Amino acid sequence: MESPFDYRRTHTCGEITSHLIGSEVTLCGWVHRRRDHGGLIFVDLRDRYGLTQLVFDPTVDQKMHESANQLRSEWVVSVKGSVIPRAEGMQNPNLQTGEIEIQVKQLGILEKSLTPPFSVCDEYTNANEDLRLQYRYLDIRRGLIAKNLQIRHQVMSIFRNFLSTHDFLEIQTPILGKSTPEGARDYLVPSRVHSGQFYALPQSPQLFKQLLMIAGMDRYFQVAPCFRDEDLRSDRQPEFTQIDIEMSFSHPKDLQTLVEKGMKQLFKQILDLNIAAPFQRLSYETAMESYGTDKPDLRFGMPLVRVDSIVKNGSFSVFLEQLEMGGIVKGICIKNGASLSRKEIDQLAAFVSDFGLKGLGWMKHQKEGLTSSIVKFFDPPLQQLLIQAFQSTPGDLLVFAAEQEAVVNQALDHLRRHVAKKQNLIDPNQYAFAWVTDFPLVEWDAEEGRFTALHHPFTAPHPDDLNFFTSNPAKVRSLAYDLVLNGYEIGGGSQRIHNEATQKMVFDLLKLSSHEIETKFGFFMQSLRYGTPPHLGIALGLDRIVMLLAKTENIRDVIAFPKTQKASDLMMKCPSSVHQNQLHELNLKVAPLHQI
Amino acid sequence: MESPFDYRRTHTCGEITSHLIGSEVTLCGWVHRRRDHGGLIFVDLRDRYGLTQLVFDPTVDQKMHESANQLRSEWVVSVKGSVIPRAEGMQNPNLQTGEIEIQVKQLGILEKSLTPPFSVCDEYTNANEDLRLQYRYLDIRRGLIAKNLQIRHQVMSIFRNFLSTHDFLEIQTPILGKSTPEGARDYLVPSRVHSGQFYALPQSPQLFKQLLMIAGMDRYFQVAPCFRDEDLRSDRQPEFTQIDIEMSFSHPKDLQTLVEKGMKQLFKQILDLNIAAPFQRLSYETAMESYGTDKPDLRFGMPLVRVDSIVKNGSFSVFLEQLEMGGIVKGICIKNGASLSRKEIDQLAAFVSDFGLKGLGWMKHQKEGLTSSIVKFFDPPLQQLLIQAFQSTPGDLLVFAAEQEAVVNQALDHLRRHVAKKQNLIDPNQYAFAWVTDFPLVEWDAEEGRFTALHHPFTAPHPDDLNFFTSNPAKVRSLAYDLVLNGYEIGGGSQRIHNEATQKMVFDLLKLSSHEIETKFGFFMQSLRYGTPPHLGIALGLDRIVMLLAKTENIRDVIAFPKTQKASDLMMKCPSSVHQNQLHELNLKVAPLHQI
Repeated sequence: MESPFDYRRTHTCGEITSHLIGSEVTLCGWVHRRRDHGGLIFVDLRDRYGLTQLVFDPTVDQKMHESANQLRSEWVVSVKGSVIPRAEGMQNPNLQTGEIEIQVKQLGILEKSLTPPFSVCDEYTNANEDLRLQYRYLDIRRGLIAKNLQIRHQVMSIFRNFLSTHDFLEIQTPILGKSTPEGARDYLVPSRVHSGQFYALPQSPQLFKQLLMIAGMDRYFQVAPCFRDEDLRSDRQPEFTQIDIEMSFSHPKDLQTLVEKGMKQLFKQILDLNIAAPFQRLSYETAMESYGTDKPDLRFGMPLVRVDSIVKNGSFSVFLEQLEMGGIVKGICIKNGASLSRKEIDQLAAFVSDFGLKGLGWMKHQKEGLTSSIVKFFDPPLQQLLIQAFQSTPGDLLVFAAEQEAVVNQALDHLRRHVAKKQNLIDPNQYAFAWVTDFPLVEWDAEEGRFTALHHPFTAPHPDDLNFFTSNPAKVRSLAYDLVLNGYEIGGGSQRIHNEATQKMVFDLLKLSSHEIETKFGFFMQSLRYGTPPHLGIALGLDRIVMLLAKTENIRDVIAFPKTQKASDLMMKCPSSVHQNQLHELNLKVAPLHQI
Repeated sequence: MESPFDYRRTHTCGEITSHLIGSEVTLCGWVHRRRDHGGLIFVDLRDRYGLTQLVFDPTVDQKMHESANQLRSEWVVSVKGSVIPRAEGMQNPNLQTGEIEIQVKQLGILEKSLTPPFSVCDEYTNANEDLRLQYRYLDIRRGLIAKNLQIRHQVMSIFRNFLSTHDFLEIQTPILGKSTPEGARDYLVPSRVHSGQFYALPQSPQLFKQLLMIAGMDRYFQVAPCFRDEDLRSDRQPEFTQIDIEMSFSHPKDLQTLVEKGMKQLFKQILDLNIAAPFQRLSYETAMESYGTDKPDLRFGMPLVRVDSIVKNGSFSVFLEQLEMGGIVKGICIKNGASLSRKEIDQLAAFVSDFGLKGLGWMKHQKEGLTSSIVKFFDPPLQQLLIQAFQSTPGDLLVFAAEQEAVVNQALDHLRRHVAKKQNLIDPNQYAFAWVTDFPLVEWDAEEGRFTALHHPFTAPHPDDLNFFTSNPAKVRSLAYDLVLNGYEIGGGSQRIHNEATQKMVFDLLKLSSHEIETKFGFFMQSLRYGTPPHLGIALGLDRIVMLLAKTENIRDVIAFPKTQKASDLMMKCPSSVHQNQLHELNLKVAPLHQI
């Protein structure tokens, strides 16, 4: 065997089939599994492409057989040998290479391995995620994450080529940008050259892509790294990737059609699924009313039904009190839920209590009509109205939430999805896309005592609603649209504001002072004065799209080297301390905690 | 005209030809130029795709003609009209749309524009670069940078598809990484969650890509954003992009062949040029000897010739003294240079003085032999030896540099390229690729009093040279290779170290303490213990490749939103001050200057 760096394989471990029987091949890879059987040593050799079975036969070469006897899991070896058919009955029809094995004639041990801290050759592991993150390179070798990374590559590749053929140019925008926090926190980068000043990592390339439209680039995209210094939820990472798209002189419908076409290609090529387009469209108002969320999972029904107008005529004090306090009453109809036990219903109530709901009213729809401890508060005609409102049939269970609207919506949204999972209503191979439109432009932020942008401050207001700007800002709709899929928001976009006066009007509504506008966005306001084309765009969440294609709910499974929910990399051990000189050059001091 | 956001064009301004004569079209774009002629108003309407001439005829619509009369440069308009042939003699054969014009029937003014601070419609501008950077969106509209961004898009697209078809997966590695400065300075990102700790932006994804090989990903690439906080030279930016490639179980030759194939595709598809492969190969030693640099411009000859062994037998004291002090004497032969005046030769001497050379010896090769004030110090046989060494013929000029080797090489490298430019020896359409190989592993850093890695500490030493590790480290070659093109290094790569013992040996040679190895690279040393495959790779400099394809020497011309040499963005005005709260959350204090 030559020295490793002169080493070359003739094939990968995934490609040798019976066509090659009789050939000499050279393979490289890792010892996946080893079995000793009838005096022979069998090794499954693994690389990214598959497994090939090696046979070491002492009657062929006694010394090499002895040397193979040393082999342990995850050693890296190269072998030369002949492709031979497997013995009768030993074929593995589940393996591309399952009809053959390699009669090894030369064995080179390229690198040994310590015993891994968890098994690499089993699909299932009970190692906890922290340990797997610490040894990420071994966890990737296990195969599942490698497969997800392959999907991720395909998604990027397909979308890039798709957009390129539609005249979009990929243009990289700066990662060292300007801090203009509006909503989420920026990651800052101290400047050495300009002491006391900072760059910020982009939360999105929003302003850059708008500037590219002003620059006349017409159609832009970028698979863009984005950063948010937020306290992380399980499906968030401090750095994430957007497929960022912007175009001029077009209607939102044009963009939506384009994205639908791209998604069709994606799902066809990756999952061999035919996605129906155009996607369903529903307004923000409808989504909130029927599903309690602006990103409904539409793979199943079970809509939220508002019953204020019915229950207000009953005498159930809990409902009446909530209505009196400005709350609402909504419910869902759980098909075949009448068979749930009292304990099971109590569990549903416990589930929604996490979302601020103190209790869950319920009625079983039996053959004889509605039954439960609260049915008595509703006259038979009211009961009929409830049955009609929910389109309930005998065997169903009606559950009710009475609270402030936001609480009711959030609780019933979660309950609806929870019940759907428990009842197996969800087809894991179904992908239910929808566009959610007609979002409010702003929402009231009680904490800050001002309106904040529901999307971002560059979203165009609906031209029909401009007269509400002063009278009732909450009523102004925007020209924003979100793309939702199976309960996830996978994209968000809008027509943008393309003139200074409107932009100023929105900044004013958000209570940005002239000084703030000038220091944060002065350059952008100026750019709007030099001939800005009407433009619009979208940002698609690459990580979530890959999660959905890979059928995982853990965002870390689709990222090569992810961070924990504390934004740490457990493998590299970062963030970490740096040398005092580095801080000195930046003219920075870490303050003693809580003493700035 | 409908409201702008309902607006849709039927064509772009680049695509309307005589085939469409008689059709109704709708176009959008910017007023590029306007001329009033014979009662008609002519407007060149511009978008990314080209120019189309509009005609406003008062006899067709008086009111619209008046409205067109308001139009000024860079206003954004939409027009509806008929495609008509241009009048006889008014065709423009240089324009795709040069045979037609649009008889406008409807005009919509979408956005007005202030008068731009420099002309957008002229290819040439005398506006200085700072002003153009401040109004980058207008400078891009001028066309040149837009064209470069298009080339950049193509390069990324071609290379990505090329690598994908060769089984490489694009895998994104973290931008929030660990600070392990070794050579250049890191940009730091303070962590809010882990007070007093920092992330670092990657100078390259080096360790991540090696970890991906350890993870068994086999073939990786990434168009990777990289960051270096260095004092910038004109062809550097604080953030730049590498086409980063790594593969396992291969020979450097395999990678080089792959890159050659990729470059051939690139140059064919973008410039329609056929690049010859395999590329020339020369050792570091040869490159330094013959060109004084490890990135020689091979589009012309004029090699450096070392003449120590000849001039030491002469009596020119300047040369003799330099040789005595350990210096060397090298020269170049400037073809047809004998016609240079004394003044012109003095200018060459002044040119090299910037590179530490106190003077330039010279001899003219006339019909009668060598002439100059120093010829007398060399006997006729020595003169003959010089003529032979330089393969000089009558009419040539020999120039000599005597100094320490590094100074001579640097000065003559610059002089050689300077003269080639002045003498027009360079064909701007020629692309002379070469692989430079057999680099030294380390070089002595007098300032730090230790050896430093010539490439990086993960480069494999040449296996034949391991015995020099203790006896003569400077003599150890590495398995590194650079790709050079027309005097630029456009790529650098190597076989990597793939076992812990060798890695430790190199770290020891670089005088990294065990503590440093553990805190900076402990995670990586650990990963090497779990079965590391032999692997190698390269990083290609995207920015430089695009510069060469776009035929510009200014790196800022190939980046959408570049930074200045002071690492500032003049458009956004960043870096900038941030709100005190942001620093408070990071537990950071900006120290008064020079008082930490």
